[in-house]
Amino acid sequence: MDDSLLVVAKDFIHKGSFSFEKGGEIPSFNLRYETYGTLNENASNAILICHALSGDHHCAGKYAPEDKKNGWWDNVIGPHKAIDTNQYFVICSNCIGGCQGSTGPSSTNESTGQNYNLDFPALTIQDMVRAQKLLIEHLGIEVLHGVVGGSMGGMLTLQWSITFPSSVRKIIALATTARQSAQAIAFNEVGRSAIIQDPCWENGSYDSNKGPEVGLAIARMMAHITYLSDKGMDFKFGRNRRKSTGELFDVEFEVESYLRYQGQSFVNRFDANTYLYLTKALDRFDLYGEDNSLEKVFSKMEAKALVIGFTSDWLFPPNQNRSIVEAMLRAGKHATYTELQMDLGHDSFLVDAPDLYDLLKHFLSS
Amino acid sequence: MDDSLLVVAKDFIHKGSFSFEKGGEIPSFNLRYETYGTLNENASNAILICHALSGDHHCAGKYAPEDKKNGWWDNVIGPHKAIDTNQYFVICSNCIGGCQGSTGPSSTNESTGQNYNLDFPALTIQDMVRAQKLLIEHLGIEVLHGVVGGSMGGMLTLQWSITFPSSVRKIIALATTARQSAQAIAFNEVGRSAIIQDPCWENGSYDSNKGPEVGLAIARMMAHITYLSDKGMDFKFGRNRRKSTGELFDVEFEVESYLRYQGQSFVNRFDANTYLYLTKALDRFDLYGEDNSLEKVFSKMEAKALVIGFTSDWLFPPNQNRSIVEAMLRAGKHATYTELQMDLGHDSFLVDAPDLYDLLKHFLSS
Repeated sequence: MDDSLLVVAKDFIHKGSFSFEKGGEIPSFNLRYETYGTLNENASNAILICHALSGDHHCAGKYAPEDKKNGWWDNVIGPHKAIDTNQYFVICSNCIGGCQGSTGPSSTNESTGQNYNLDFPALTIQDMVRAQKLLIEHLGIEVLHGVVGGSMGGMLTLQWSITFPSSVRKIIALATTARQSAQAIAFNEVGRSAIIQDPCWENGSYDSNKGPEVGLAIARMMAHITYLSDKGMDFKFGRNRRKSTGELFDVEFEVESYLRYQGQSFVNRFDANTYLYLTKALDRFDLYGEDNSLEKVFSKMEAKALVIGFTSDWLFPPNQNRSIVEAMLRAGKHATYTELQMDLGHDSFLVDAPDLYDLLKHFLSS
Repeated sequence: MDDSLLVVAKDFIHKGSFSFEKGGEIPSFNLRYETYGTLNENASNAILICHALSGDHHCAGKYAPEDKKNGWWDNVIGPHKAIDTNQYFVICSNCIGGCQGSTGPSSTNESTGQNYNLDFPALTIQDMVRAQKLLIEHLGIEVLHGVVGGSMGGMLTLQWSITFPSSVRKIIALATTARQSAQAIAFNEVGRSAIIQDPCWENGSYDSNKGPEVGLAIARMMAHITYLSDKGMDFKFGRNRRKSTGELFDVEFEVESYLRYQGQSFVNRFDANTYLYLTKALDRFDLYGEDNSLEKVFSKMEAKALVIGFTSDWLFPPNQNRSIVEAMLRAGKHATYTELQMDLGHDSFLVDAPDLYDLLKHFLSS
């Protein structure tokens, strides 16, 4: 029997202009979101889930019993799961600037009737958090019990504790960083170059039905490698071969076939300009700020924090996660760091891992 | 005073057909090469240097005093240097299949008058070594004192000790592997996809003056990241910014500018089809063979071997280098492994490092 939650995606329409951190504004915006569980009477049991770069608002359950896939964190969120929807009211929204139903570069600009494309204002992690805050208020929640997210979602989680310190009781950030390293920026720049130099990008003004598909697929293939690990890939693919087609540069190894599939399926569900905007938001993310002091930025934090690094994560390696907690502790905050020994690289936070479930469950209920 | 060696590139023309390991043949071939120092009377002081994927035959000295750059390993090769050209006769050739003067996909196919392009036979590391052997014989050398190479050059070095066991006294392989890992194949596949999907690739039959430049630059930008390290990039670039041009997705960080430059300069000196052929040769390289036994393959080796791994190399990490020596030792051979603590990633073998020089010098003279 399929005991998946059955869920419905909803829209929060903010009818009023929204100003972006780096300048620019839009006259209104939409956030697509889902909720699971029930908000209690004093609105004290809400947990906000923040998705990663390529994620969305659909983090648990199915829309219909026949759906092949559950939401991206269904192993963590649901009745009796680590984030127990019998106990908590769980919210997840596609970020502002996203392309899965929230307002972003691929949405229609009401003043022109065309897609925003590059007319969309430059985006930051703080913009995403400020838009989420409006949704949370709309849902009648003043203080979130928790904010939880991995990778880019971890950045949003940290940003919540700084931008709205009195609105969050607990944060859990996984596989994340307080600022993008040169290497992480470098990988994003290669992906962006692949998109921008694709002739079908057309300076960002492509038709939505025939964008820079080649560039976007290349960007995704490369990025996907950074989400895995050497050991994990050797375990999963090794040097296993595909049956030869006889074509000189056709797929020869299983890992090549897997990557091509990842690239192609990403093109079918993601918008290229959005990929540019979101990776730029990642690259600009730098909580150290102008004073180069992470301690200083966390001095405002009121939430209790748990940060979890994964040993095989080489995109946001353990030391980048640990240094966040070290700064919180120096700032005199309640913070704890732990590291999970897992081989699957950056994406370890998404896989089935009872150790992780225990950590989430106990930290949220303690 | 500039005390650079002044050198001349030469051509070895093999007038006779050459058969490739995977099938196919070419009616003749050329290897472009350089030599430094003097071959002694009994031809016992020759050292062959094997270049990496994007390297060539010009590994030391200058062609003219006004040249801005020395050869790629000039810090190692020259009078009184680690590989002392007062003592040794040093040879370096652009590999067969290469595009720096040796016969490869970008060379003219005499039977058609056109470039070989995809008519060039599939290439392996063993093909490169077998072509080098003909050059070595042409130079009157029966037994090489040493074969030395890093990265792809390390693969050639290992292959020499197996294919021509009685023709090599010593091998030094640096930052290399006995077989490409799934991750290394994956990165190469992304690079190849960028080239093949560039409309200017034209199924490999592009005009030599306007090939798939965008795809090749993307491939190089990405590969270049894998040659460095997280720590090295943070040290060199950190989050340093460029002056903004105001363009939305123009270069913002120094590291982006550096990568774009690397991509562009590579396009100016390298051929895209050659990149496809060489990366395929890397991916197919698997000394474990059908019996999955590295020990067995090294049972034929007669040379003494030194293998050097670099702590920050994540493309061919230390354990991949160490396992080569472990197999040699299990096969009862003279072999030693060492690991240098260097932060610059895979390319550490190319940088100024007195510890490395000492190792090379003493192993070659011991």
